[in-house]
Amino acid sequence: ATGDGDGKNTKKPVADPGSEAGSMLAGFQTEKIMRESSREKNIFIHGKMGSGPNEGQDAVLILEKTPFREDSLAELFKTSELKLQMRNDIYSTYHMHPPAHLNDIKATVVCPATEKHIKKYQSQELFLIQESGEDYRNITLPYIQEQSFSVQWVYNILEKKAEADRIVFEDPDPQNGFVLLPDFKWDQKQLDDLYLIAICHQREIKSLRDLTREHLPLLQNIQQQGQEAIMKRYSVPSCRLRVYLHYQPSYYHLHVHFTVLGYEAPGCGVERAHLLSDVIQNLQTDTQHYRTRTLTYPLRADDALLHKLREAGRF
Amino acid sequence: ATGDGDGKNTKKPVADPGSEAGSMLAGFQTEKIMRESSREKNIFIHGKMGSGPNEGQDAVLILEKTPFREDSLAELFKTSELKLQMRNDIYSTYHMHPPAHLNDIKATVVCPATEKHIKKYQSQELFLIQESGEDYRNITLPYIQEQSFSVQWVYNILEKKAEADRIVFEDPDPQNGFVLLPDFKWDQKQLDDLYLIAICHQREIKSLRDLTREHLPLLQNIQQQGQEAIMKRYSVPSCRLRVYLHYQPSYYHLHVHFTVLGYEAPGCGVERAHLLSDVIQNLQTDTQHYRTRTLTYPLRADDALLHKLREAGRF
Repeated sequence: ATGDGDGKNTKKPVADPGSEAGSMLAGFQTEKIMRESSREKNIFIHGKMGSGPNEGQDAVLILEKTPFREDSLAELFKTSELKLQMRNDIYSTYHMHPPAHLNDIKATVVCPATEKHIKKYQSQELFLIQESGEDYRNITLPYIQEQSFSVQWVYNILEKKAEADRIVFEDPDPQNGFVLLPDFKWDQKQLDDLYLIAICHQREIKSLRDLTREHLPLLQNIQQQGQEAIMKRYSVPSCRLRVYLHYQPSYYHLHVHFTVLGYEAPGCGVERAHLLSDVIQNLQTDTQHYRTRTLTYPLRADDALLHKLREAGRF
Repeated sequence: ATGDGDGKNTKKPVADPGSEAGSMLAGFQTEKIMRESSREKNIFIHGKMGSGPNEGQDAVLILEKTPFREDSLAELFKTSELKLQMRNDIYSTYHMHPPAHLNDIKATVVCPATEKHIKKYQSQELFLIQESGEDYRNITLPYIQEQSFSVQWVYNILEKKAEADRIVFEDPDPQNGFVLLPDFKWDQKQLDDLYLIAICHQREIKSLRDLTREHLPLLQNIQQQGQEAIMKRYSVPSCRLRVYLHYQPSYYHLHVHFTVLGYEAPGCGVERAHLLSDVIQNLQTDTQHYRTRTLTYPLRADDALLHKLREAGRF
């Protein structure tokens, strides 16, 4: 949901399917539509609960239409009412009204919601940054250093202190080795949204910006052994895999994304993703490529780095 | 729907909202699920009509959940049944059952559907191609030339024989000039999916592969004047615009895509899109960049170019 491609989410809710809620949203008062997607058929609403134990409290309400289920299609056809909307030659469109139980909506309520929760779901304007090599050294690098973002959870994985059972492949070499494991967004139940992450054992590489020709063996190793391991475990060949880095990454320890072609993974857009095969070619041509090039990337309006760049008059 | 980013669609269906269709799908026999997206909540089904004038005929049925409508939210809250699914701390999720008229499905029927229609909607596996400069000259370029794809519709636009009223901006210079107009996928009703195309007046540039340093004035002109024109007409500043080329393009006459950041336009993924700002930097560094580099791109399983590459043992 963060669009990061590799955020961690450890919250494990407890199911409680027996309870009833009836019409607890009946008096819900909408204050603001925070975000909506007509493509994904969802909407994020900030409002106040109208009845029940949380009456008058701030809430975030997330509504999302549910996917079609193959096993209920026959019943859907049998029991739905159709209204013709338009007809032209062999094409016709209809409004279809299925019975309620075949067409539910998933509703998520966060209540009481604090300012922070509300901010989290608020859609933020994005700004495209053109960061020169100099901008990186003068603004971005000092910002990363002063924030000293923790990557302890990454070290826990590399040291097998956490998620050891999730590891799909490991090359333990301290220089060119890496660990390959499923991204948290992938539930591993189907291959259409296959998403794995390779995390290198070397701890000194923050991002694309640190890469030089000396890292070519590491990068080539991740590409080749990562692809082979995915073929072996999931039978997905390399010609079906999109292999790329993010810049900016969501954490500053070098990692590589493997997603299946045809799955529009969050963060695989041209404004943030860099194909590993292009990175390798660029470094082969010029070892200074990622130190000197102007790199383009998006930042959210509330990103502290955006404010740093703005203060420096670079935006 | 083709995922091209710039396909043409001239079919204009005639509305006929008065008619009723009742339960015409009641006996629909599913033969195959051709494609489905749980993210977009749609499904494409091949089957046979069960009743009515087209009984027994092949049909393609497309079902899609509809987006939420802000103006009916209050009624939705008031009239929907909720069933608690799980609760954990401040988070709870529900199954929500709204009355049918607040939750319709858009159904599209293509009937009778020929083999060709069915093939069109069938999801095709994608393959990632690594095309060297040599592959381009030996396989791809001869293929493009022997196909002699028509770009007459592009010339019609450039000569004002078609779509003249849609032009947002023009620089008539024959060398560095271009025409800017909305892409057909953008209905221009809202800015969240803003999508424009710049088509250059020069007719000799087929794609990225033909670009050299001599084209820098053209490319810089498209970037600068295109961004200015979009700011002037739509008040969307350049830091909100993703400006890129496709490789492979869907037609072989140089054109540049302008889409708004935050809109995941089809074809803006790293495996097909090339940021214009990167293209300019690459050519500034090396005039031969796009003649010599290995370029990565996806092809559908049924693409004739894929078969050519396979015949040549390159895949």
